[in-house]
Amino acid sequence: MFKVGIIGGTGYTGGELSRILCTHPDVEIAALTSRQNAGRKVSDVHTYLKGYVGDLEFTQSISETRDLDFVFVATPHGVAMKEIPQLMEQGIKAIDLSGDYRFHDVDVYQKWYGHEHTDVENLGKAVYGLPEFFRDKIKGADLVANPGCYATSAILACAPLIRTGLVNEDVIVDAKSGTSGAGMVPTERTHHSTCGETIIPYSVGKHRHTPEIEMAVDMFAGSHSKVTFVPQLLPIVRGILSSCYFSLKKDATQEDLDSIYERQYGKETFVHYVPEPSIRAVVASNHAQVASKLIGDKVVAFGVLDNLVKGASGQAVQCMNLMLGLDEKEGLNLPGLGV
Amino acid sequence: MFKVGIIGGTGYTGGELSRILCTHPDVEIAALTSRQNAGRKVSDVHTYLKGYVGDLEFTQSISETRDLDFVFVATPHGVAMKEIPQLMEQGIKAIDLSGDYRFHDVDVYQKWYGHEHTDVENLGKAVYGLPEFFRDKIKGADLVANPGCYATSAILACAPLIRTGLVNEDVIVDAKSGTSGAGMVPTERTHHSTCGETIIPYSVGKHRHTPEIEMAVDMFAGSHSKVTFVPQLLPIVRGILSSCYFSLKKDATQEDLDSIYERQYGKETFVHYVPEPSIRAVVASNHAQVASKLIGDKVVAFGVLDNLVKGASGQAVQCMNLMLGLDEKEGLNLPGLGV
Amino acid sequence: MFKVGIIGGTGYTGGELSRILCTHPDVEIAALTSRQNAGRKVSDVHTYLKGYVGDLEFTQSISETRDLDFVFVATPHGVAMKEIPQLMEQGIKAIDLSGDYRFHDVDVYQKWYGHEHTDVENLGKAVYGLPEFFRDKIKGADLVANPGCYATSAILACAPLIRTGLVNEDVIVDAKSGTSGAGMVPTERTHHSTCGETIIPYSVGKHRHTPEIEMAVDMFAGSHSKVTFVPQLLPIVRGILSSCYFSLKKDATQEDLDSIYERQYGKETFVHYVPEPSIRAVVASNHAQVASKLIGDKVVAFGVLDNLVKGASGQAVQCMNLMLGLDEKEGLNLPGLGV
Amino acid sequence: MFKVGIIGGTGYTGGELSRILCTHPDVEIAALTSRQNAGRKVSDVHTYLKGYVGDLEFTQSISETRDLDFVFVATPHGVAMKEIPQLMEQGIKAIDLSGDYRFHDVDVYQKWYGHEHTDVENLGKAVYGLPEFFRDKIKGADLVANPGCYATSAILACAPLIRTGLVNEDVIVDAKSGTSGAGMVPTERTHHSTCGETIIPYSVGKHRHTPEIEMAVDMFAGSHSKVTFVPQLLPIVRGILSSCYFSLKKDATQEDLDSIYERQYGKETFVHYVPEPSIRAVVASNHAQVASKLIGDKVVAFGVLDNLVKGASGQAVQCMNLMLGLDEKEGLNLPGLGV
Repeated sequence: MFKVGIIGGTGYTGGELSRILCTHPDVEIAALTSRQNAGRKVSDVHTYLKGYVGDLEFTQSISETRDLDFVFVATPHGVAMKEIPQLMEQGIKAIDLSGDYRFHDVDVYQKWYGHEHTDVENLGKAVYGLPEFFRDKIKGADLVANPGCYATSAILACAPLIRTGLVNEDVIVDAKSGTSGAGMVPTERTHHSTCGETIIPYSVGKHRHTPEIEMAVDMFAGSHSKVTFVPQLLPIVRGILSSCYFSLKKDATQEDLDSIYERQYGKETFVHYVPEPSIRAVVASNHAQVASKLIGDKVVAFGVLDNLVKGASGQAVQCMNLMLGLDEKEGLNLPGLGV
Repeated sequence: MFKVGIIGGTGYTGGELSRILCTHPDVEIAALTSRQNAGRKVSDVHTYLKGYVGDLEFTQSISETRDLDFVFVATPHGVAMKEIPQLMEQGIKAIDLSGDYRFHDVDVYQKWYGHEHTDVENLGKAVYGLPEFFRDKIKGADLVANPGCYATSAILACAPLIRTGLVNEDVIVDAKSGTSGAGMVPTERTHHSTCGETIIPYSVGKHRHTPEIEMAVDMFAGSHSKVTFVPQLLPIVRGILSSCYFSLKKDATQEDLDSIYERQYGKETFVHYVPEPSIRAVVASNHAQVASKLIGDKVVAFGVLDNLVKGASGQAVQCMNLMLGLDEKEGLNLPGLGV
Repeated sequence: MFKVGIIGGTGYTGGELSRILCTHPDVEIAALTSRQNAGRKVSDVHTYLKGYVGDLEFTQSISETRDLDFVFVATPHGVAMKEIPQLMEQGIKAIDLSGDYRFHDVDVYQKWYGHEHTDVENLGKAVYGLPEFFRDKIKGADLVANPGCYATSAILACAPLIRTGLVNEDVIVDAKSGTSGAGMVPTERTHHSTCGETIIPYSVGKHRHTPEIEMAVDMFAGSHSKVTFVPQLLPIVRGILSSCYFSLKKDATQEDLDSIYERQYGKETFVHYVPEPSIRAVVASNHAQVASKLIGDKVVAFGVLDNLVKGASGQAVQCMNLMLGLDEKEGLNLPGLGV
Repeated sequence: MFKVGIIGGTGYTGGELSRILCTHPDVEIAALTSRQNAGRKVSDVHTYLKGYVGDLEFTQSISETRDLDFVFVATPHGVAMKEIPQLMEQGIKAIDLSGDYRFHDVDVYQKWYGHEHTDVENLGKAVYGLPEFFRDKIKGADLVANPGCYATSAILACAPLIRTGLVNEDVIVDAKSGTSGAGMVPTERTHHSTCGETIIPYSVGKHRHTPEIEMAVDMFAGSHSKVTFVPQLLPIVRGILSSCYFSLKKDATQEDLDSIYERQYGKETFVHYVPEPSIRAVVASNHAQVASKLIGDKVVAFGVLDNLVKGASGQAVQCMNLMLGLDEKEGLNLPGLGV
């Protein structure tokens, strides 16, 4: 049994990590931190964990727990970079779920996140945690930067096509996300009366997942890409649909598209190429679905996933499994709800 | 044209008053106050009012506007009682949309609202603004206490039956409200991820509309009643359904029930007795629907309305019409959305 | 008072026409047809119309009513083309809310709708009923083809930009619609458990509003355009957001975009150019909002409206007003709900 | 490995059984029937099962599969009674998820379901499958009648209190259910535009779960009870909240209530007594939560669960585990989603 700690245990991604890990056969949640809930029983705060975490209590800091084998940092960006250096020093493998370690180019980070990066050293070590594309690197990593939820859905839809050279590097990503992607802090935008019966474009042209998708597209395109990313808030709790638009550079048929995606994902456990993408098919699971359609000389590719699972905590556990030498599917091998 | 002021113009009830009054043929919105938006154009803050309020700007206080004929106080409870005395002194008729003037018994107020009432003098003057039951009193009033949204829906369903003496005074009100009833300030409970795909009982046995419904039931029962009130938050923006349960004291048929309600509401413009109550039939309008069903020796009566219209600002405008000697329907004579 | 008839009075657009017209000062609903409800009181079927349509009953056919001045045809496509010829013969002005008269090119119709057009004669007479662009033609028309809901939202966002020649004619329209756009007949896709907590792409590359948007874009572009149209079903009842993507052909600033749209819509009653588009600001009203944002060398323009009002029945009434020589705003001059 | 068959594999409860059983360590889904999908791959119809059911195909009938150890009948009522006799004859243990075997009194069945019961013989054998109350009987049963979703939520909330004799047998159950409880067949009521932004009372006083709750209450009350049951349709997909109202017969404190429920459920795996009930805490899991509150001399008790899991297929698997001598938790030991 690996002893695992989670820094930031009350937020949505921290809660979701607990939900997944509490039934994982090879790990034990040994520490869960929370500033506001330190000293309280975890199952009193998260009543859905009753019976799954025994008498575990939130602590102020993971340093109160000895002999941790692995740590998830589920804090807002800017905080993670203060936690990671110590973990790396102590030789504890870690995954950061914030944006702090996603960019190899520190300038990109500083430009989009608006503050200095104080741990450039470990930035270079961090592997981008998208197992379907970087499985081997993740296996050998000490530090993984868990991808953003929008970024995961978009990259899964875009990468197979981009890497063939069949389409322009100029991608439009029209993305729609459930509200849990915005986290647990109440805001005007996520107030039910504001967002409950509408769809709201926000951070248009300014969202921080833009450079992340661009970075990924670049890796596959082999040249500099341009991503036009427009996020929109859906009146659902869990789920993302990213609709990605490309222009063909050469002739292609629907069959060509199908075989490109089938080749990419045919053997994957968690990503499926399907005729019609469905959030309900993947919600509550670590699965994602990808679909594509040829429309004249354009292609639309869809990526759907549960933003808290494959878009955050589930993918983090998938990476942890790889980093600890476990079966990648461990603790995650459940279908989506369907209905 | 009557010159009307609204104290508290950014909140939901203030915004809804503006929405209704801006097309009212006999009044002009002369002042709209807002601490946070003072100096800004109203139509820049509430873009849905573009074209309906000209260049009107929010002001810090209504005292900046001269010659007001009428004022709506759309502030939180505790604030209204600081505004009303001056209005009464200046001889300006007013309606308070908070709970401050709803109880004739100051002790009931202080017990349920948890703070002192500082304007006991005007408390005695205030008329409870439910036109279908207190029309004549409202016509002659200088100060009207606008009923709560839950209370309106419950009283409309309960009063006709209670006043016949056919049922026990012991009423259970299982009420369900859309989130706009909770106002515009984001909270943990009204955060979309919390409330968007569930129904949440809250303030069970402690909600402030309990004594309000009791007071009203008392008036019709002629003896002291007991109301068990359980509010529940629905994942919709507008609308309330109150399901009210009674025990029959003597035999009755469904036809008896039907004729009681038909007699009560048959000539009303805004309250309709129907076979099946529908929030969608009344949403966005000042209409309410009431239905009743005999189940053995029990009766369930339903009251539905749009909490921001018949449950708040629409009813306030209906009262204003009566207080100003206008046609009660003026500015409100529109059907609900249906779909 | 003009005597107006509605063919297809039980469907959503027919019901919405009734809702709007019942308070219109210059018209009287003289006939409402319904095969399934013929003989029933309208207010028993649509309880939201109680008090607004007197004792009006559904009839089998409008021919049962004499001296109609105007008729709305709110039937499915294919049916309208059987009704319109008689109306034209009798000299009754009419608006068709289906797709039957939207295309001047009968081949386009037959290709996308999959059946023959049996009234080519009147096809040539029909004016496309988008008042903000074809006001004068509508004024003189005997027959108006009311635009589709998606098409209206997309054209309002696209046309001002396209006509400047500043952008490519190659437009991507990623559209999201509430479920009422799909009509009142229950289907697997609009079953709440299917669509209630997700967003569903459908008819990708095959939706019939595609050629309609293309036709409109062509008119403004002066050359043949290509529209990639992807509709997606939202878990809301009313409302459309169309996100339209363009590539700039020459340099432009955000200020350039703003002034193009301001020039177009600055004097319009029902279409507003705003910084942030909001479905809630226009829902339940005939208003639409348009916004645009420059992102590098791309532009995203948003169009939002209530699909049943500005996207259907409200726009039809706006056209009727023009055709009957009335003030364009009559019966429609109400703000959106805001909340 | 037990070989399990499911009759009725395309409906929601059949699909949910597949979702749960496909990761159950001790059973194998050997047969899944579907009239409409016979011959198709299960994972092509239910894409959420991709990777979990291999190449399994729907068959016309379970008789095409040999050596089944256990069968779930997930068909509409009236159909199950035609399937069960053969299974009993062949000695195959079975659970019926419809209402066909829930009543020992055939007259009650015939009165509420409106048709004859054609398998009275096996009616007597059937055990009511609520493990928290009838665990031992279920262990020894050949045939289990799986409780209704509303009934489960209401009985879990009512039974502990009723059996103490502390409250009147006269119970009001105001219940609210997500739309998946209505099944997969599209209807007018479950059409999104009808039910998506409202709450709809339906089958008031006539719902078939009424006698089921009464039967259960009777068993615990020891005398004849009367249940006033009012179901209401919520705009969510999964989840039920039953709010149950009682009158105290003798004095009691909140602490008394708490200890009654703690004693009942303190050692249960799937039912938890909590201060505030939450559908989100149990959704997607076999857990239920119960809460109670004293209000004067009334008590309100809440029961919440996921209608497709603890309210249907999860509970059925829990019963199957008991009937097959397996650990009751097998295949079900997962927390609810929380968010």
